[in-house]
Amino acid sequence: MARWRKLGIIAGGGALPARIAAACRAREEPFHIVRLSGIADKSLTAFDHDDCAIGEAGKILRVLKQQNCDGVIFAGHVRRPDFSSLKVDWRGAALMPRAIAAAARGDGPLLSVLVETVEAEGMLVVGAEEALSDLAAPAGAIGKIEPRDEDFDDIRKAAAVINALGSFDIGQAAVVAEGFVLAVEAAEGTDAMLERCAAPPLLGERKRSGVLVKRPKPGQELRVDLPVIGPETVRNAARAALSGIAIEAGCALIIDRDIVIQLADEAGLFVYGFTGAELEAK
Amino acid sequence: MARWRKLGIIAGGGALPARIAAACRAREEPFHIVRLSGIADKSLTAFDHDDCAIGEAGKILRVLKQQNCDGVIFAGHVRRPDFSSLKVDWRGAALMPRAIAAAARGDGPLLSVLVETVEAEGMLVVGAEEALSDLAAPAGAIGKIEPRDEDFDDIRKAAAVINALGSFDIGQAAVVAEGFVLAVEAAEGTDAMLERCAAPPLLGERKRSGVLVKRPKPGQELRVDLPVIGPETVRNAARAALSGIAIEAGCALIIDRDIVIQLADEAGLFVYGFTGAELEAK
Repeated sequence: MARWRKLGIIAGGGALPARIAAACRAREEPFHIVRLSGIADKSLTAFDHDDCAIGEAGKILRVLKQQNCDGVIFAGHVRRPDFSSLKVDWRGAALMPRAIAAAARGDGPLLSVLVETVEAEGMLVVGAEEALSDLAAPAGAIGKIEPRDEDFDDIRKAAAVINALGSFDIGQAAVVAEGFVLAVEAAEGTDAMLERCAAPPLLGERKRSGVLVKRPKPGQELRVDLPVIGPETVRNAARAALSGIAIEAGCALIIDRDIVIQLADEAGLFVYGFTGAELEAK
Repeated sequence: MARWRKLGIIAGGGALPARIAAACRAREEPFHIVRLSGIADKSLTAFDHDDCAIGEAGKILRVLKQQNCDGVIFAGHVRRPDFSSLKVDWRGAALMPRAIAAAARGDGPLLSVLVETVEAEGMLVVGAEEALSDLAAPAGAIGKIEPRDEDFDDIRKAAAVINALGSFDIGQAAVVAEGFVLAVEAAEGTDAMLERCAAPPLLGERKRSGVLVKRPKPGQELRVDLPVIGPETVRNAARAALSGIAIEAGCALIIDRDIVIQLADEAGLFVYGFTGAELEAK
């Protein structure tokens, strides 16, 4: 039983918002989309929606209330805005000082300001995995292939790298191959990071090895901005000749799981949901 | 007065080995170059030299001794070799188990094995800044432009990121702009990292801001593998619309300092040697 009656979906980029909308429609649950202009996917116009600029906090909140949304989900990725050229309404302008101060401390604090603002209006902020429960990464192998012992060593190291960078509010992903840190994600995004692992010098003479690990930053707001993988992640990992992808069970989202499994099995990659206990083992 | 009579230069890639050779020649100090095949620059064949594969440890040591080198410098970058397809001589083969075990712990331990091997033969391992004293980065602004207060905030954050990653033996560089970590160097190298800062989405609508920081990893062998900047670094930083470059004074090398200063002044970038005390201030 959902904790809300009507879901407002604040839609950033990527495929996640449309998946959530489609799932709501399939279950005949009411929802309304706020498309962030210039960021959200065009396909979302097929659903009930309004378009708002990211700085129009007043309009976004007004739309959600007019539509009687009592649950709100932030879905999809949003690039950090350029505050100096942002289109804002008065409510957005009023939020600006706090938002800018928070943004200076990283994406995490910025998102917290948004969450608090929505909650102060009496709406419930919902995690994507709650709205669409089969999105959440389960524990263990998803698909046919299991990581080998040496893959677990790489998983542990990459997970530790992401953890060490947590206080700097950097990315949620790293690639480690045979104990060697190939790439660390900062602002470029996972696809761009995998792209450089698929080209010289990082590809080099490496045989198939290495793991992409995605996990939340320590202490991050888990209802917003959970790490996501999908079919494109598997394709890119295969191009980069990695052995597999590991995500933190329950703390990452898998879009189009059936396709992810099929692509991973075909490419001979594992997709694995690791637990905190597995990181500590050894 | 140098602590050695004749310098053996084990030459990896990049411009540094030729700079050291040219400086020795200008000072009429004897030297001999061991070019690592397939890695070292062609221009080095203009000097007295031998070519050796990176796995031919026996040949490298024999050449250095036959040439009566009593000081040895490791100069230029070397990609981590693929141990499974390495051309080795018997001495290289004897070193392999230790080298592979060390390499699994990162580049630092691998380099330590090489340093110890050379020292066990009675030769002195010399840092590049000792062979060519005007290579070492001085403290303070090099060139006309000084960092502003906000640049120092970015310098401190980037320096802390590199420090936090030290135990993982990752790169020696990061880019921070307005408190936001744009990029972290792992295995791709500084030029590739700056290239992605110069393109969307990292360039984005960012005005000129951000600092490239290079410093040694905590605890690393300082006679080998010091961070290096040169004219290409300044050009790439300018393309990425950064405000400047900061390196740790005394713990980084500047190649072609005159050209670096000229390019940085023309582009309006600072090049700054920071000290430990400056990192701790505030």
